[in-house]
Amino acid sequence: MSAMPSAPHQAVVEHLVRQAVYSRLGKALPRPAAAPNPLVVNISARHCHLTQQAVEILFGKGHQLQVHKWLYQEGQFAAKETLTLVGPRSRVISNLRILGPCRTLNQVELSYTDGIALGFDLPLRISGDIKGTLGGMLMGPAGFFEMNQGVIRALRHVHMSPDDAEFYGVKAGEEMNLKIGGACGLSLDKMLVRVDKAFKLEVHIDTDEGNACNLQPATACSLFK
Amino acid sequence: MSAMPSAPHQAVVEHLVRQAVYSRLGKALPRPAAAPNPLVVNISARHCHLTQQAVEILFGKGHQLQVHKWLYQEGQFAAKETLTLVGPRSRVISNLRILGPCRTLNQVELSYTDGIALGFDLPLRISGDIKGTLGGMLMGPAGFFEMNQGVIRALRHVHMSPDDAEFYGVKAGEEMNLKIGGACGLSLDKMLVRVDKAFKLEVHIDTDEGNACNLQPATACSLFK
Repeated sequence: MSAMPSAPHQAVVEHLVRQAVYSRLGKALPRPAAAPNPLVVNISARHCHLTQQAVEILFGKGHQLQVHKWLYQEGQFAAKETLTLVGPRSRVISNLRILGPCRTLNQVELSYTDGIALGFDLPLRISGDIKGTLGGMLMGPAGFFEMNQGVIRALRHVHMSPDDAEFYGVKAGEEMNLKIGGACGLSLDKMLVRVDKAFKLEVHIDTDEGNACNLQPATACSLFK
Repeated sequence: MSAMPSAPHQAVVEHLVRQAVYSRLGKALPRPAAAPNPLVVNISARHCHLTQQAVEILFGKGHQLQVHKWLYQEGQFAAKETLTLVGPRSRVISNLRILGPCRTLNQVELSYTDGIALGFDLPLRISGDIKGTLGGMLMGPAGFFEMNQGVIRALRHVHMSPDDAEFYGVKAGEEMNLKIGGACGLSLDKMLVRVDKAFKLEVHIDTDEGNACNLQPATACSLFK
């Protein structure tokens, strides 16, 4: 894992500047600047999570995922390795990115647009809750790996620390609303709150949601209970 | 134009049933049932509008567009004919549906997902306002037609009659909000109101918007000022 961390997200820089400016002016902090952490909204393109066993079947014995780019959550990365997914109707999605590090389950997260391209109805599931879902065949340079379940559209969620949960007045498992501004803005309902000491405040939306509102790095976003 | 009209939209049937049930029970109509017309929300996939001249260059002299399926707005149809679009970076979208009847301008309406696949930034424009936008090359069985402008993402809008505008308390050119329910529901802001005596009440959203919320025929939708 030798890659350098990426440049900070624009929302992080803006949050620091906002706090510094208000502090210099000696003025009271408005609510977004008073938040303990900046609100970062990132688009997750289609990707998969794999076990080390699946990685070795697909890429060769002893293979370790290589870091392509560090993600905003500490220790998480987009791997250099990609796969080909063959869906249940034999249609194919190429260049499916793997996210590391390895997990204890195999899961493919697609958008509904991807599901339509593959020709089947994706179930909407909380990441990790894959029981009874359809699977698919993964193809890598060293072999095939058959997933008998685990192809889903992930339920929208926001990662946050206990400090963030206190600031927003929410508990793990509750739902929030994310307002995204701009010329074709929208509000996303039913965003599940996930709380962990290790989490940085971050919303992941998928490519359909990001493209529905043309989310750009400078687009204003706000989170409501 | 020999195709039979399609079955009525689920929203139309529901509206009639709702009105009949409340009338039979002798109860006051709740607001959605009191609306003069049902709210129909349809997903528009990528498509183009063409002049008769462009149709003849692409499909042959004297060619008339054939009806594949009648649309909800009176007289509008998806044509049997499709085209291939070559974008400004030489990437291709096949099976681009033509909507009829012919118009006085050539315009291609894509989603931002399509724009990313073609490798360029789509401008967000009101349908018809294409001045200064990028174009592309259209390929048909009888020839090529070069559009020097007209490839856009269409601004969200709702078609309505003057009766609907009065019921919702809006005027042409104002903006409304569309709430779409379901397990991954959302609200779309800045939906432009277009009023015409000939319009049936209908919102068109694109495939990104429809897939962001998994819009289905039975999904509850409501329109707010």
